[in-house]
Amino acid sequence: MIPEEIIQYLKSNATFVSGQKLSQHLKISRAAVWKYVHELRESGYRIEAVPHRGYRLKFVPDKLLPWEIRAGLATRVLGHEVFCYDTLPSTMDEAFRLAEGNQCREGALVCAESQTRGRGRMGRTWFSPKGKGIYASLVLKPFLAPSEVSWITFVAAIAVCEGIRQTTGLAAAIKWPNDVLIKRKKVAGILTEMNAEVDRVHFVVVGLGLNVNIDKAHLPPQATSLRMELGGKVSRVLFLQAVLKQMEHWYGCLLERRFTPVLERWKELSVTLGRRIRISEHHKAIEGKAVDLSDDGGLIVLNSDGDLIKKMTGDVEFLD
Amino acid sequence: MIPEEIIQYLKSNATFVSGQKLSQHLKISRAAVWKYVHELRESGYRIEAVPHRGYRLKFVPDKLLPWEIRAGLATRVLGHEVFCYDTLPSTMDEAFRLAEGNQCREGALVCAESQTRGRGRMGRTWFSPKGKGIYASLVLKPFLAPSEVSWITFVAAIAVCEGIRQTTGLAAAIKWPNDVLIKRKKVAGILTEMNAEVDRVHFVVVGLGLNVNIDKAHLPPQATSLRMELGGKVSRVLFLQAVLKQMEHWYGCLLERRFTPVLERWKELSVTLGRRIRISEHHKAIEGKAVDLSDDGGLIVLNSDGDLIKKMTGDVEFLD
Repeated sequence: MIPEEIIQYLKSNATFVSGQKLSQHLKISRAAVWKYVHELRESGYRIEAVPHRGYRLKFVPDKLLPWEIRAGLATRVLGHEVFCYDTLPSTMDEAFRLAEGNQCREGALVCAESQTRGRGRMGRTWFSPKGKGIYASLVLKPFLAPSEVSWITFVAAIAVCEGIRQTTGLAAAIKWPNDVLIKRKKVAGILTEMNAEVDRVHFVVVGLGLNVNIDKAHLPPQATSLRMELGGKVSRVLFLQAVLKQMEHWYGCLLERRFTPVLERWKELSVTLGRRIRISEHHKAIEGKAVDLSDDGGLIVLNSDGDLIKKMTGDVEFLD
Repeated sequence: MIPEEIIQYLKSNATFVSGQKLSQHLKISRAAVWKYVHELRESGYRIEAVPHRGYRLKFVPDKLLPWEIRAGLATRVLGHEVFCYDTLPSTMDEAFRLAEGNQCREGALVCAESQTRGRGRMGRTWFSPKGKGIYASLVLKPFLAPSEVSWITFVAAIAVCEGIRQTTGLAAAIKWPNDVLIKRKKVAGILTEMNAEVDRVHFVVVGLGLNVNIDKAHLPPQATSLRMELGGKVSRVLFLQAVLKQMEHWYGCLLERRFTPVLERWKELSVTLGRRIRISEHHKAIEGKAVDLSDDGGLIVLNSDGDLIKKMTGDVEFLD
């Protein structure tokens, strides 16, 4: 992609680069160079243009832009096709629209700087303040049955944890079924939705809501952000790239139907297993000890009568 | 709905009905009566209008029209909201679009006289010649997990069989997983698709492809139509109404989580169980006797080694 190459080239040169050099390097006309520079400026890049000297990159916007996400992305499939928006009602809806219309490939990523109707599990809303978080939906086309799709949530939760650990060193952990916590506070949520036949998934959309640089004032008390925990700003681009890299690795296990390593890593990263919990669903709750995770994504709870109960859904509260 | 009431009123009067009478009966102006009559004519109704005498219904088009489907429909929910089209790429796509945009209620029905990209299971095409079949998709919003959605296919297959039996007396039977046969030839197909979270269905769309009045010349040798089997034309409207009525009954069982009567009725109507079959999936096939249906929609096959194998998907061929 040419705009990406222009950015790369300008980034690798601290000083001015002549229009002629860019035009030779990219094998396009100088008029075309000018057109792309203009487009990049519209996206928020500040690119100085001085007659007889050329172009110089002065400022890279703090935005999730396709050229930033793709540059240095160490994946083979995920995130190579990127659709970025300033604002969307919901990245999930947009990803569904693209996938249903066959307008994107496996691994396509839809990002927005803010969402007006960002959503979480069970129709809840996901708070999506502008420019501070990552609100992204990834289109996957795995060969799985609908009952196996919970594995995608596992894989995404592992990827988010690993991405946080790599980027910040913070000890992120997984709370069943789909949250990522740091010190018991929610830093990320995962929403997995599908379009499927009874026995075959057409496509899955994995939504990632990641509290990256959101301030304390803008979060509920039970939530946190990487910035709050770290005491400093985190590059959303680098963090997203790390998550995508991890996601591709673990998703690859699923495609090869190697579920065991995924399950094991999930358990290692789990903050739920071994704890006394209350799990609520439709105004009914049970209490007990979370003892295991089942192959199909259920949480196995040992109650006080000594019964093992498998819960497929619910909200978990820690009691110890 | 006013157009529906106009049709009903004209149908119940063999002779002319004055504009004044219609206007009084419907509590609308005579100009409004004229406007609706004009609309109905555009849909294909022939309505004579003679000065000083009034209106007379001369001809009802052989089409699936909302007013025809709703008139005399003995359901409480299914088919009350109806979207009819002359032609659509696929009623499935249109139903998904409506349900995703929250533009329809549970039970909404999308029909088309013909489809240009009618589809079956596993991305196959469904042949949809104009005006001869029923190509319809029903939007349901059941409280089910994705793994339970195969029950919707069971319910639809039962409803189609019962609808055929009631309307024509023909001995329709179910072939696992989603076909309805008459004398071993396919007369109907069911396609169940969903939009779901991992643990919760947002909505299900059930597609019905029913070969009603299609001629032999337009069908492959392994298929048949009600007309071919009966030697006469069948009213698509009455047949569809009968299927919807049955569907509502059996779907009601699911909503109350009374799965056993559904499973029992399915087994009674099954032409698969008890037979020697070959079941193929991705170029691999197994042979054996179809002995049972599992709760989650799988077919239990006893192979020659005496192993019981549960198949969740595949194409069945009868060997005896």
